[in-house]
Amino acid sequence: MIQITSIRISDDIRLYNDLSAMILEAIADSQIEIQNGDILVVTHKIVSKAEGRIVDLACIKPSTKAIRMAKVHDKDPRVMELILKESKQILRAKNGVIISETKHGFVCANAGVDQSNVKGDMAVLLPVAPDESASRIQDSVKKKIGKEIAVIITDTFGRTFRNGQTNVAIGIAGINPIKSYIGTYDMYGRKLRVTEIAVADEIASAAELVMGKAEGTPVAIVRGYIFEKASKTSVKLLLRAKERDLFR
Amino acid sequence: MIQITSIRISDDIRLYNDLSAMILEAIADSQIEIQNGDILVVTHKIVSKAEGRIVDLACIKPSTKAIRMAKVHDKDPRVMELILKESKQILRAKNGVIISETKHGFVCANAGVDQSNVKGDMAVLLPVAPDESASRIQDSVKKKIGKEIAVIITDTFGRTFRNGQTNVAIGIAGINPIKSYIGTYDMYGRKLRVTEIAVADEIASAAELVMGKAEGTPVAIVRGYIFEKASKTSVKLLLRAKERDLFR
Repeated sequence: MIQITSIRISDDIRLYNDLSAMILEAIADSQIEIQNGDILVVTHKIVSKAEGRIVDLACIKPSTKAIRMAKVHDKDPRVMELILKESKQILRAKNGVIISETKHGFVCANAGVDQSNVKGDMAVLLPVAPDESASRIQDSVKKKIGKEIAVIITDTFGRTFRNGQTNVAIGIAGINPIKSYIGTYDMYGRKLRVTEIAVADEIASAAELVMGKAEGTPVAIVRGYIFEKASKTSVKLLLRAKERDLFR
Repeated sequence: MIQITSIRISDDIRLYNDLSAMILEAIADSQIEIQNGDILVVTHKIVSKAEGRIVDLACIKPSTKAIRMAKVHDKDPRVMELILKESKQILRAKNGVIISETKHGFVCANAGVDQSNVKGDMAVLLPVAPDESASRIQDSVKKKIGKEIAVIITDTFGRTFRNGQTNVAIGIAGINPIKSYIGTYDMYGRKLRVTEIAVADEIASAAELVMGKAEGTPVAIVRGYIFEKASKTSVKLLLRAKERDLFR
């Protein structure tokens, strides 16, 4: 059985906060004890805030290109400037929707630039190196309470072909994000068609169900899922190479 | 807290089997009591088998087109024939991968035609009307044990941009598959950017974590998730209209 529990963090997260200490405190406040093998799922927003990846829009001077695109796509030119700066490549821009590939290689709307759940005229950017952010939390939990856990940092992305958004992994530590069935057989001895499951994304989605969007619960603990541990791992394993994608 | 439990079904499912009776028996064997508000997640494969959507390939005579495409894409011409018959439109065909839109409107590989977890030279097709299949299970649970549940029938689909497959909903009953935040506000009183979460797909993904692919556990119970009930609902709410998709 898998159990998923949300963790409330009441305090606003600020630059230089010790995020993992705050998470551990919040978990203790919830009367929960972290166990070996738990997966800590963390919304990227609090990671970005603790890392200073939050921008006062008043300080952004949009480029001519950003001003032009903002007009066409009905966006704040300063936000448009951030989207351009965070993107490796704009893939589609239509009806106010901008889909780009971020510097990390994620394909998502607005390069992950987000104005919700921040104070005033601010925007949050994705963490610069989300795998490293996840590793830091993992290491810190090991150091502070001696438990071996995995960490998944998430964002909420739209998808092609289907309505609605789902939570996906954007940074990982301690877990192989893919469960491979390559070379394994089904109940009747036939090679399996389904060969690779993106379990890190499924865990991110599962955690979203308890985290919500405005409840102040940016962390979840997923317990009871047996995963393949991986000391050297990366969310890049989840990113399909451009030339292997039939819809890019 | 959300709890997800897998249910083992040892018997092979056959045409005219009373699927919901078999599921309820399997749940009882697992010492679990269904509760009001549970979500029953069911792999489509056992639904298809119970509905006779399983084909002996020896009985399929491939068309000239199927034979030609099978050669190019290194497929069994009889399976190719089924893929063509199940598809409304082939969207991409390259390197042995065929992505099509099924008659239901799902965009997936091989129109959902699948040869794993079936005996001998057989192929399983998607249920004809998966929402109705879900409703039948829901109604039957209500009738047999008096409990109000939701049902989600799943398949495992690939995605654009990201490696690995995830479980998604292909049929639903009793639950609004979308959780809408439209018109709601974040912790700081700002309108939320993330407006619609595809919770039915997130639940399908969460359930996959306990179901696996070859363990004989085609059913999971998701308990503790508070969802919006819907008596008239459809998986079609999750299907993005062609003209609203930037990547089709």
